[in-house]
Amino acid sequence: MDISAVNALPYEDFVNIFGNVVEKCPLITAAVWTRRPFTSFNALEAAINEFIDALPESGKEGILRCHPDLAGKHLHSGALTRESQEEQTRAGMDVLSSAEASQMTRLNEEYKGRFGFPFVICARMNDKVTILRELSERCQNERAAERARGIGEVKKICRLRLQGLVLSDATNKL
Amino acid sequence: MDISAVNALPYEDFVNIFGNVVEKCPLITAAVWTRRPFTSFNALEAAINEFIDALPESGKEGILRCHPDLAGKHLHSGALTRESQEEQTRAGMDVLSSAEASQMTRLNEEYKGRFGFPFVICARMNDKVTILRELSERCQNERAAERARGIGEVKKICRLRLQGLVLSDATNKL
Repeated sequence: MDISAVNALPYEDFVNIFGNVVEKCPLITAAVWTRRPFTSFNALEAAINEFIDALPESGKEGILRCHPDLAGKHLHSGALTRESQEEQTRAGMDVLSSAEASQMTRLNEEYKGRFGFPFVICARMNDKVTILRELSERCQNERAAERARGIGEVKKICRLRLQGLVLSDATNKL
Repeated sequence: MDISAVNALPYEDFVNIFGNVVEKCPLITAAVWTRRPFTSFNALEAAINEFIDALPESGKEGILRCHPDLAGKHLHSGALTRESQEEQTRAGMDVLSSAEASQMTRLNEEYKGRFGFPFVICARMNDKVTILRELSERCQNERAAERARGIGEVKKICRLRLQGLVLSDATNKL
């Protein structure tokens, strides 16, 4: 794995490989291609984070709104992106008890009703206990604080997805 | 059809319906939901255009890079979005002669090599003759001029997709 091989990629291949490091936002990956060459994968990650930070607040909310509910209807229907499906499954979102599932649905709706964007948390750094606790607590926050918190979680998800790709066949074949 | 019904949509439904008015950039639609209520569909369109205009130049290039090639490999493999497939087919991109297809491929590659983003044109306002002519001429432009020109075409495509949705079942059922 070599960042120079990544730097040599045409934008189509770059977006094909890294386009979903921010969920359903290939625009971001496609934009940072302009910033190549990257000195490292950390530099690529930094460019993505800088692009996100420079967006207006509505744009940050837009990123959050591209994320699916945790343990939502799309998890069981198979309509999630591959990355989300794996992350939610690892966190046990597919094996909630009936009571946990009801609580998650109720709190997701409360959160979305209050903030106008979904609860986003890095599922791979949590399990169902911590996710439910965080969701319950974060419902009490202010909108601006939650927008910032959600974007912080988006960046954690992005970092882990990037790391996964660096270790995967997708980039080792470069 | 009533803009007030659109204004009452939860963000999930709003993004489901309008998420591809800018090709593969649901982030933009999801962001402008913050700006509701809209006084009209023109106001919704204006909010989208303002969001695009406020992006850094890399972000505008990112939007262009989310667009497929015209008459590219994805047209025949069925890998285009429904909207792109319809638009390219209407413009005759699926029935090019062998010579036209070769010319299109050669010029698409030349354009992408020169600018680092694909040739974007509102296919529904053109046919294969004008598309080939424009592609050939625009290959000679400067990068900044082509970025601006491409974004102008993105806005035309967006306007027609919005108009189509306003007239379609998707929004009449609201």
